[in-house]
Amino acid sequence: MSYKAPVNDMLFNIEHLARIDQIAQLPGFEEAGLETAQAVLEECARFNEEVVAPLNFDADKAPSSHSGTSVTTSKGFKEAYKQYTEGGWQGLQHPADFGGQGLPKTIGAACGEMLNSANLSFALCPLLTDGAIEALLTAGSDDLKATYLEKLVAGEWTGTMNLTEPQAGSDLAQVRTRAEPQPDGTYKVFGTKIFITYGEHDMADNIVHLVLARVQGAPEGVKGISLFVVPKFLVGKDGSAGERNDVYCVSIEHKMGIKASPTAVLQFGDKGGAVGYLVGEENRGLEYMFIMMNAARYAVGVQGIAIAERAYQKAVAYAKDRVQSRPVDGSVKGSATIIHHPDVRRMLMTMRALTEGCRAMASTAAAAYDAAHHHPDAEVRKQNQAFYEFMVPLVKGYSTEMSLEVTDLGVQVHGGMGFIEETGAAQYYRDAKILTIYEGTTAIQANDLVGRKTARDGGQGAKALAAQIETTEKQLAGGNDDAQAVARRLKAAREAFVDVVDFIAAQSKGDPNAAYAGSVPYLLLTGNLVAGWQLGRALLAAQTQLGQGSDDAFMKAKIVTARFYADHILTRVPATRDAIVEGAASVMALPQEAF
Amino acid sequence: MSYKAPVNDMLFNIEHLARIDQIAQLPGFEEAGLETAQAVLEECARFNEEVVAPLNFDADKAPSSHSGTSVTTSKGFKEAYKQYTEGGWQGLQHPADFGGQGLPKTIGAACGEMLNSANLSFALCPLLTDGAIEALLTAGSDDLKATYLEKLVAGEWTGTMNLTEPQAGSDLAQVRTRAEPQPDGTYKVFGTKIFITYGEHDMADNIVHLVLARVQGAPEGVKGISLFVVPKFLVGKDGSAGERNDVYCVSIEHKMGIKASPTAVLQFGDKGGAVGYLVGEENRGLEYMFIMMNAARYAVGVQGIAIAERAYQKAVAYAKDRVQSRPVDGSVKGSATIIHHPDVRRMLMTMRALTEGCRAMASTAAAAYDAAHHHPDAEVRKQNQAFYEFMVPLVKGYSTEMSLEVTDLGVQVHGGMGFIEETGAAQYYRDAKILTIYEGTTAIQANDLVGRKTARDGGQGAKALAAQIETTEKQLAGGNDDAQAVARRLKAAREAFVDVVDFIAAQSKGDPNAAYAGSVPYLLLTGNLVAGWQLGRALLAAQTQLGQGSDDAFMKAKIVTARFYADHILTRVPATRDAIVEGAASVMALPQEAF
Repeated sequence: MSYKAPVNDMLFNIEHLARIDQIAQLPGFEEAGLETAQAVLEECARFNEEVVAPLNFDADKAPSSHSGTSVTTSKGFKEAYKQYTEGGWQGLQHPADFGGQGLPKTIGAACGEMLNSANLSFALCPLLTDGAIEALLTAGSDDLKATYLEKLVAGEWTGTMNLTEPQAGSDLAQVRTRAEPQPDGTYKVFGTKIFITYGEHDMADNIVHLVLARVQGAPEGVKGISLFVVPKFLVGKDGSAGERNDVYCVSIEHKMGIKASPTAVLQFGDKGGAVGYLVGEENRGLEYMFIMMNAARYAVGVQGIAIAERAYQKAVAYAKDRVQSRPVDGSVKGSATIIHHPDVRRMLMTMRALTEGCRAMASTAAAAYDAAHHHPDAEVRKQNQAFYEFMVPLVKGYSTEMSLEVTDLGVQVHGGMGFIEETGAAQYYRDAKILTIYEGTTAIQANDLVGRKTARDGGQGAKALAAQIETTEKQLAGGNDDAQAVARRLKAAREAFVDVVDFIAAQSKGDPNAAYAGSVPYLLLTGNLVAGWQLGRALLAAQTQLGQGSDDAFMKAKIVTARFYADHILTRVPATRDAIVEGAASVMALPQEAF
Repeated sequence: MSYKAPVNDMLFNIEHLARIDQIAQLPGFEEAGLETAQAVLEECARFNEEVVAPLNFDADKAPSSHSGTSVTTSKGFKEAYKQYTEGGWQGLQHPADFGGQGLPKTIGAACGEMLNSANLSFALCPLLTDGAIEALLTAGSDDLKATYLEKLVAGEWTGTMNLTEPQAGSDLAQVRTRAEPQPDGTYKVFGTKIFITYGEHDMADNIVHLVLARVQGAPEGVKGISLFVVPKFLVGKDGSAGERNDVYCVSIEHKMGIKASPTAVLQFGDKGGAVGYLVGEENRGLEYMFIMMNAARYAVGVQGIAIAERAYQKAVAYAKDRVQSRPVDGSVKGSATIIHHPDVRRMLMTMRALTEGCRAMASTAAAAYDAAHHHPDAEVRKQNQAFYEFMVPLVKGYSTEMSLEVTDLGVQVHGGMGFIEETGAAQYYRDAKILTIYEGTTAIQANDLVGRKTARDGGQGAKALAAQIETTEKQLAGGNDDAQAVARRLKAAREAFVDVVDFIAAQSKGDPNAAYAGSVPYLLLTGNLVAGWQLGRALLAAQTQLGQGSDDAFMKAKIVTARFYADHILTRVPATRDAIVEGAASVMALPQEAF
């Protein structure tokens, strides 16, 4: 089997870190206890292991292709997608009102990881549909909801996000696509959008494009951007896809990775104007798009965890199979499988610890999301919302950056074979690199973390997080050697974090270059700390479970992994503090002309 | 222009770090002063910028192809290679006795960097030829030298290294290719070799394979391996390539990167036996192969610097061109080129500092090589040889690992465009990944550093290096703010290094798993320290030059870059110490079955 879903680890997080027992007490989630989680995850694992994962390698070698205005997806995608929709997977987290199953994100995120581990390129289509659903749920009129949501939730139609234009990447103020109001209340949309994931394909009956555009006379910049629904096929009175709309795929990109996912250039309005329907109010498009983006950013973070897990599994399998050289400790006479060698073990442990750390962080964030949306107490909702929002750039930024390290190590474990495309490890290395770029580069996540999440409240939210971490440290400090070691590393990292928070809060007004010079290092430091913290919590839970009839081998492995993370990864944090706090000036010291 | 050779930086290193004035005092190098270096580098720059670099992108898209037993290289390679040989570039560092120019490695390494920046795939062919020349010079009989060296030094024929077999990668003890002695003193060679770079191609009249094989009855393991010359065409009495030998290319690999360089599977002896000529004595093959490998390992380190430089130049060009978003410091009203943004600047500075640091390290190592081979005083030769040998795993291991970070940042600076193959940044990311694998993975380099270079003498050599670094620290400590800052970081890093050296020397016998668990981190730490040290020396030299009629802008940039390196990269060292010294146990703590 090319992929085996880590159901045990996911359920451990769901039970002990996300606390599904508490989530199941929230209104609307009464059925969503641990048993439900287990049943859903096991079924999801089966589907992804058997149906989706086997398509991954071949699809990379024979990507989606473009001809005329249509795109043919890789072999097997259409059939697998049909099974995906028939299994109801698209609706997992969406409201029952529109045909979904209304399960918590805590469960949905784990399922999302599996789909992405199985096939990153395939999984992008549902990921974008989720975003479109979120946007319409939040800002769409009743009409739009009635027309589109059931089809999207069922996965019969898919969604896209149309933000980027050649001159407008990270800077959406530059969007030039324009929308002209029509007498019937619709708009005609004109312009070119690039980098549109699944902007054209053959897996669904209709594609619902969510498009940023400017209405004539709108203010300059981001305050003049509106959001439109522009379906590939106009929807008839009977609710079915009818007449072709004036939006066409003119080409798809040749990319380094995620080759099977078609990345389209879409042309709107070359034949008189694409019919668009305003979402919400004019000029509030960016606000609505952020709803999609926040959902998508979290999901892309999960993609990082997913590709890391897949790379880890492949590396472990190779390390257990490949025989080469004698172990340095003489434990085997003659050649041994390379998993005996300390440096291979170090690589595998690094891969494992990073992956489990980020998974734990994402699971905890998902629980906060669920509480933020379902808790009866407004104050609790607010706290959880703040926690979740702080986590989004970390889940996105840190999990994806770590996936580069993990997929690199995955190739490295394979040695020369890793560089040969036939082996498959190289695909993960190539695929992963998009994750630090799309849905906002790591720098964009870091700007969010520095600006909105840290400097805006003078670092108060960040310090509240530090206080929570300190509580875990104290619990760990009373434990055994492993727990105490983790406590020490966590304390050093948390103190470094607070130093950086103070620095950023102090500099952000007076010397913004200094604050932002350390933005990405600050994000990585914070993600590292939070993932380490969650593994600290995991260690405490695992120690409690030992000898209690749970899977002791799993619990022991969790403890070892948490310890490894603390020794080898959390230790990076204080160094990063020094670079941020003392090194800001040297970032900007070289004049532009000297580059 | 797609590539501009950094001649100024190279000459600065050659003058101030490698001290070409001292090299020019060595017997045989009397003509090799700064003026010669400048003339050679400028000519080399022109050739690589104009002839080799323009082929790089297209060759990646239309790689070498295999048909029957022959390989056709990418468009333009054959013609460019002809110009390369006509320019005498292959013979740059090789003895005048065989038609070379006998220039020091200090100059040759800089030229090698240019060729590799221009086109990594193309440059591999000469790189392997250099290795074959080294092996024959050291261990070949007069006959072999007379038959092969002039042609190789001229580049008319090319060389290969045939080590790897499917079961024998890092572990050469497993080599199974066999050689049967013939009555005429030749051998017949039978076996399969894989991953043979330029094992077949159409750029030269003959290919001289250097092949590891076992003579019948040889001892088991590495002590039973001999080295053979197996030419593609047998050489006639007149010295020209004649009858086809029984070695054929059966396929070439599909790789993630360096696609234009054919990586061959070679079959020896399927038609009765490939004629081979023993190099040196039987069963000493590995020893000779290490001569090739040490040359090749240094050269692969230079490849890391080269691809990093190219990625840096591309990222700088994009950052100066791409307009997106307002600077956070308000220095520009409206959108600005992205080089204004602190995080882009941080990425560019990181790329620059890593590249310059590794270049400085390689240049200093090259000077030691030259002194080790040409100094009249045996004791000085010995010291320089020891220094050079300590440097080889660092130049190879650290420069290539850093090239992964630099090429990653290169893609990241480009945002979404970086992931599109048309842009070209992705190629560097894909190409670089082989560098940490071939000619000995980073772990193999680290084993060398831990075992032969550190533990064997109880850390004495390593500590002698630390003492040299301390001398530079003291010089820096008396300088201005920048110098003092670098001194502080260097001191902390050097102390951490000594801690690790003590740890490794202490553990290598009693607990080898603990010593080797930290082997790669130790290599990275040491490479980081040595590169930072050389930039510290560079800073001192640059400050002396300021206002003395040199290029002041260059000198100021060097100072800023050294400071950045100290603040942002040297700061990683103490963290790595903690992971090695305190984290060894957790590397091996997870039982194999728990993976």
